[in-house]
Amino acid sequence: MSDWTQLWLNYRKVSCDINSVNVSIEGFSCDNRIIKSLISELERGFKGLLDADVNILAEGGSGKADGLNVAIKKETSILAEGYRVSRKGSDVLVEASDERGALYGTYHLLRMVNSGELSDDYEKKCEPDNPLRMMNHWDNMDGSIERGYSGRSFFYKNNEITVDERTRDYARFMASIGINGVVINNVNVKDAASYLITDRYFDKLKEMSDVFADYGIKMYLSLNFASPIELGGMEVCDPLDPDVIKWWEDKCKEVFTALPDLGGFLVKADSEGRPGPFTYGRTQADGANMLADVVKPYDKLIIWRCFVYNCTQDWRDTKTDRARAGYDYFKDLDGKYHENVILQIKNGPMDFQIREPVSPLLGGLTKTNQMLEVQIAQEYTGQQIDLCYLIPLFKEVIDFKTYCQKEKDTVADIISGRAFGNKNCGIAAVINTGNDLNWTGNDLAAANLYGFGRLAFDMSLSAEEIAREWVKQTYTLEKEDEDIIVNMLLNSREIYEKYTCPLGIGWMVTPNTHYGPSVDGYEYSRWGTYHRADHLGLGVDRSDKGTGYAMQYYPENASKYNEMDKCPEELLLFFHHVPYSYRLKDGRTLIQYIYDSHFEGESRAEEIAGDWEKLKGKIPDDSFNRVKNRFERQIYNAKEWRDQVNTYFYRKSGIADEKGRKIYE
Amino acid sequence: MSDWTQLWLNYRKVSCDINSVNVSIEGFSCDNRIIKSLISELERGFKGLLDADVNILAEGGSGKADGLNVAIKKETSILAEGYRVSRKGSDVLVEASDERGALYGTYHLLRMVNSGELSDDYEKKCEPDNPLRMMNHWDNMDGSIERGYSGRSFFYKNNEITVDERTRDYARFMASIGINGVVINNVNVKDAASYLITDRYFDKLKEMSDVFADYGIKMYLSLNFASPIELGGMEVCDPLDPDVIKWWEDKCKEVFTALPDLGGFLVKADSEGRPGPFTYGRTQADGANMLADVVKPYDKLIIWRCFVYNCTQDWRDTKTDRARAGYDYFKDLDGKYHENVILQIKNGPMDFQIREPVSPLLGGLTKTNQMLEVQIAQEYTGQQIDLCYLIPLFKEVIDFKTYCQKEKDTVADIISGRAFGNKNCGIAAVINTGNDLNWTGNDLAAANLYGFGRLAFDMSLSAEEIAREWVKQTYTLEKEDEDIIVNMLLNSREIYEKYTCPLGIGWMVTPNTHYGPSVDGYEYSRWGTYHRADHLGLGVDRSDKGTGYAMQYYPENASKYNEMDKCPEELLLFFHHVPYSYRLKDGRTLIQYIYDSHFEGESRAEEIAGDWEKLKGKIPDDSFNRVKNRFERQIYNAKEWRDQVNTYFYRKSGIADEKGRKIYE
Repeated sequence: MSDWTQLWLNYRKVSCDINSVNVSIEGFSCDNRIIKSLISELERGFKGLLDADVNILAEGGSGKADGLNVAIKKETSILAEGYRVSRKGSDVLVEASDERGALYGTYHLLRMVNSGELSDDYEKKCEPDNPLRMMNHWDNMDGSIERGYSGRSFFYKNNEITVDERTRDYARFMASIGINGVVINNVNVKDAASYLITDRYFDKLKEMSDVFADYGIKMYLSLNFASPIELGGMEVCDPLDPDVIKWWEDKCKEVFTALPDLGGFLVKADSEGRPGPFTYGRTQADGANMLADVVKPYDKLIIWRCFVYNCTQDWRDTKTDRARAGYDYFKDLDGKYHENVILQIKNGPMDFQIREPVSPLLGGLTKTNQMLEVQIAQEYTGQQIDLCYLIPLFKEVIDFKTYCQKEKDTVADIISGRAFGNKNCGIAAVINTGNDLNWTGNDLAAANLYGFGRLAFDMSLSAEEIAREWVKQTYTLEKEDEDIIVNMLLNSREIYEKYTCPLGIGWMVTPNTHYGPSVDGYEYSRWGTYHRADHLGLGVDRSDKGTGYAMQYYPENASKYNEMDKCPEELLLFFHHVPYSYRLKDGRTLIQYIYDSHFEGESRAEEIAGDWEKLKGKIPDDSFNRVKNRFERQIYNAKEWRDQVNTYFYRKSGIADEKGRKIYE
Repeated sequence: MSDWTQLWLNYRKVSCDINSVNVSIEGFSCDNRIIKSLISELERGFKGLLDADVNILAEGGSGKADGLNVAIKKETSILAEGYRVSRKGSDVLVEASDERGALYGTYHLLRMVNSGELSDDYEKKCEPDNPLRMMNHWDNMDGSIERGYSGRSFFYKNNEITVDERTRDYARFMASIGINGVVINNVNVKDAASYLITDRYFDKLKEMSDVFADYGIKMYLSLNFASPIELGGMEVCDPLDPDVIKWWEDKCKEVFTALPDLGGFLVKADSEGRPGPFTYGRTQADGANMLADVVKPYDKLIIWRCFVYNCTQDWRDTKTDRARAGYDYFKDLDGKYHENVILQIKNGPMDFQIREPVSPLLGGLTKTNQMLEVQIAQEYTGQQIDLCYLIPLFKEVIDFKTYCQKEKDTVADIISGRAFGNKNCGIAAVINTGNDLNWTGNDLAAANLYGFGRLAFDMSLSAEEIAREWVKQTYTLEKEDEDIIVNMLLNSREIYEKYTCPLGIGWMVTPNTHYGPSVDGYEYSRWGTYHRADHLGLGVDRSDKGTGYAMQYYPENASKYNEMDKCPEELLLFFHHVPYSYRLKDGRTLIQYIYDSHFEGESRAEEIAGDWEKLKGKIPDDSFNRVKNRFERQIYNAKEWRDQVNTYFYRKSGIADEKGRKIYE
C-alpha cells in the first residue's frame, strides 16, 4: 500500500471475458522512452482492468489467440499528439503520428475498457485543441505550496528536490489527461527557488525532467526576473542593459546545456512586489522579448504573465480600477511580442473569483500569442473543502464570444490558435495537488484536476461528459449512483456561488487566507477589490460613467455590459452600482435576491451533503469518510456565508426578508 | 557607544557648582549587593550630572570638604521600601529601613539633582503604595515578543537566555522607577519556555536572577499549567490528582533549590487555548490553590490571571458577553483563594482597549488578593508608532470608585491593600520594551515605561507630574519646550481615542495585528468583540435589558451604567445600542459626534506632529528623527482611521456630515 492513491488510474477489475492481450508496436521504436511508458501502462492497465496478461509481440510478429489484439501503429495523417482508437471485433488499433499521440491513445483505450464503452465496432479520433496544455505548480522549495490545500509539495522538501515513484505517478496522471507541460515552481520565485537555474540543482532537475519526458511532458521553470542581481551580483536587471543580456545569454547556455529538455520559462514580473521591466522604465514587451531572444537559439518559450496591476491602491480612489489594468498595460503592445513569447492571461480581469467576466485581453490582443490561465487550486472557490466543480466555469470562459473577428472568435478559438493561426498558445491551470494521500485534499476535487486536462485536450467535451468520465474511472458504481455524483459536481459551482458573493461582485472573503466570509475584509484595503456597499445599494460602476472598464470589450459586449438593464444578471454587480430596490428580471428586488440566494445556496449545500450519504457502502470507506468530513466543513462554511452576508446587508439596508426567514440582527 | 540608550538615566551634565560628593553609608553593609549597586549608581550619576568625583567614606569616617555630603542611613521608622531624602545646605540624607528603600531614595536624589529641585532646604518622604510593582514580559524564547513593538527580546535568542550588560541596564532602569518584580517570559508558555523550570536553564536563570537581585528585583516565571504532562509525561494535569501534586512538589523543590530568589509563578490557565483546571472539572481556585500550597513552604507567590473567557463565541449569539466572563468565573470563588494566591485582573473587562469601563472584579472581590494588570505595550493603542501616553488612562482606573465599601473603595485602595488589608497585592504592566536601540520603538513611548513604575510606587502622582519628570530626565530643554512635550503627552490619549473607536465601543482594529482600522474586522468573529452597527445605530446593550453586564457593578455604578441618559458618554456605546440620531449632552447627534471626533482626532494628530517640529535642534538629532518618523506614520494611520470610520458610518447610516467635510463614498 503506497502513501498515495491512484486517482482515476485505479484500474479496478471490470466484468469482461477477455483474459489475454497481445500488443504489437508498429512504426514506433520499442526503445523510445514514451513507448516504453506506453507498454508499461498497457501492462498495468490490462492487468488491473481485465486481470489479463499482456504479450508484447515483436514487430511484424503474430500471436493472435483468444485475446484482444492491440496494435500501436504509426499513422502520419493524424495531427501531432492526436490519435485514433478503433476496434473491430478482437482487433484494436491505436494510431498516431508521434509517440505522445500513441501514449494518449493508449490512455484513451484503457479509459474505454474501464467504462465498458469499447464496443466491438468502435472508432474515435482525437486531436488536441490546444498546443500547450500546462500545469502551473505554486510549490515553494521549502515544501510549502502557495494557495495549496492538499498538504505539502511532493516536489520539494527543505529546499531539496525529490524525485521518486510519486513523481512518476504524477507524470502518469498528467499524461493520461493529455498534459504536455509542467511548471514546477511557484511564479513568485524567491529564496532557494532563485537557484533552480544554477548547478546547485541541475542534477536533480535533469532527473525530474527525465521522468516527465518518459511521459511526453516538458518541464518548465518559473524565473526570477531579478536573477542578474540576485545570482549575478549585478546592480540592475534592466532588460535593455547589454551586460544584463550577456548575463542571461551565459546563464541560458548553462541551463539548456544541463537541461536540454526544459521547455522554457514562466515569468511573473512587475506584479505584487515582483521585480520587472517597469523598474527601469521599460515595457513588458521589452522584458519578455529580451528573454525570448536569449532562449530562441535553444527553441524555448517565454511565458509571460499578464497579472500586472497596482496593488497599493487607495480605497478612496474610485477612478483607478484593477479590472482595467491588464488591458491597459498590455493592449498597446499587441504585435510587439516576439514569436516565442506567450502572454498568459487569467480568465477574468481580477483573480479567480467564483464569477468574473472574461478578461478583455483575450481577443483584445489579436497579434500576440495567448495562453489562458485558470486555477483549479480552489483559492477563492472553497479551498478543496467546499465542493466546487470548475469545469462549467471554464466552459463558459472558452465558449465566450469575444467578437474579435466575424468567425472563430471565441476564447477557445483564440487559445487554440484557430482564430489567428498561432502555434504557441494554449491553456494552463494553477494546480490543486499536494502530498496528501488523495492528492487533492477533497477526493472530489480530483474531478477538477482530471477535468482540466481533458478539457484542455478537447474543448468540445461538456462538463457533464467530463464529470461522468471521471466518476467512472474513480469509483465503481451503478449508473444511478454515478448520476448522483455527476449531479453533485454539476450543481456545485452554482451552489457555491449562491452562498458566497452575489452577482459577480467577488472578494467578500477573509483577507489573506481567502476562505470564509468577511464582507468588508477587502473593502478598505490596497488591493483594488471593493464592493462599495452603502445603505442604498452595492456594486462597482464599471460602465462608461464609472471606471470605463466595460468599454475595453468589443462593441457587442461593451454595449451589453455597459447598461444595467442589458447586463447579464450574474455579472450585474461587477459592472454596476445597483440599488437594493432594483428589480431583477424575475421581478425580485436585488436585496431579496441576496437573501434568497444565500438561503438557497446553504440549503442546497446540505442537500448535496445528503446525496453523498446515499453512497455510503458504495464508495470505499476511506474515500467516503474523507469527503463526508469535507461536506461537514462546507456546511459550516455555507452557514457562515449565508448568515454574515445576510446580516451585513440587512443591517446596512434595513430591509427585511420578505419571507421572514432568520436573519441575525 | 553602546547599542542602546540610557533612557531617563542619561545623567547629562546640569549647571551646578558642586564638584565633589562624599558618600557615607550608615547602618547598611557596604557588602550588601543592593548597597553596592547604590554606590555604583551614585558614582555614575554624580559623574554625569555634576562631573563630580564621589568619595565613599568608611562608616563613621568624615571627609567633609567643599562638596556635597551624602549619607545613606538606616532609619527603621520608615516603611519597607520607603525612603526619606532631605537636604540642609551641603548635607544630604537618604534614609530607609531597608536596602531597596535606600536604592530608591538614591534614584530619587539623583532625579532631584537632575531636575534642579534639590533645594538647600529639601525634605521628601516616599513610601510605596503598592507592595508588588511588576513588569510582565511577553518575550518568547525564540527571541520574538508577543505584542512587542520595539524589536526582539533582549532576554532570549534562539531558545537561549542572554545575560549581559543590557540586562544590568534594564535592571537599573526598573529599580530607578521602583519596580520590584519582573516576569521574564510570555504568559503563553510554549515550546522551549516550558523548560524554564528544568535544569536546562537553571544556570542562566540564576545568573539573571542575581543581576535582578543586585537591584532589589525579584524574578518570576510564567508557568505552563500542563507541565506535568509536557515535562512529566503524565496523562493529566488535574490539580486535585495526588500524583500531579506530588509532581509539582518535586518540581518546585528542584526549582527553588536552584533559584532561591525566584518570587513565584504567573499562570494563564483556561484561556485562549491554554490548559487549565476547567479541563478536569475543577475551579480556578482549585488550580491556583494547589500550586500555592506547593510553593508555600518556600514563601513564594502564585499570580493567577483572570483573563478567562469563551474565545469561540458565535457572533450570532447576543446573550453571551465576553465582558461578563471574568466576574462570572471568579466572583463566586471570592474568599476561596489561599493567602499566597493573587488574582491578576486586567483594568477593563475586555482587553486593553483605548476606553473600557473598569473591571467589575476589582472591588467585586473583597476577600481575595488582587493585582491590577495594565498594558504599556501599546497593542491596541498605537503600537508605539502612534503617540499614546497611557498614564491618564491608568489614573482613571486607579481613581475609580468601586463602592465596594463606604470609604477606601477606589481601585487604588484595593490593589494597595488599604481597602481590605491585603499584603499580597499591587499592580503589573505588560511591558513595552525590546532590543531596539531606544528600548521602546518610539522614544516617547518610554514615558509609559517610566510612568508606570512611578505611578505604581506613588499613585498620588498626577499624569502631568510624571510626564514632566520623564521629560526633564530624558531631554535637556527650556521650560517652554518641556511644556510642549508634556502637553503632547497629556493630549495624546484623547487624540488617539478620537480618531479610532468612538465612545468606548473598541475593537474596530485589523484582526490579528491590531494596528489600523477594520471596522467590521472583529464583527463576525469568534472573539466576543462586536459593535452591532446597523443602519439605525450601534453599540452593545449591556444593560439589564441586554447582557446584564452593567449589573455586575455595585448599585451606585450599575444604575449609572444601566441607563443610556446617565451613562458617562465616553462609555455610551460600551453599554448601550444607541441610535445615530441620539442627542449627546452637547446637543450633537451620535453620528455627528462620530464625524466630528474623527476629523478632530486626525487634525490634532497633525498638530502634535507639528509641535514636535518646533523642537528640532533642541532634541538630539537621532531621537528627533526617530520620533518624527513615527509621527509621519501616525498621521497616515489617523487618516485611515478617520476616513474608514467616517465612510463606514456614512455608508451605513446615509446621514451626511452637517459640516460638509470630505467623507468618501
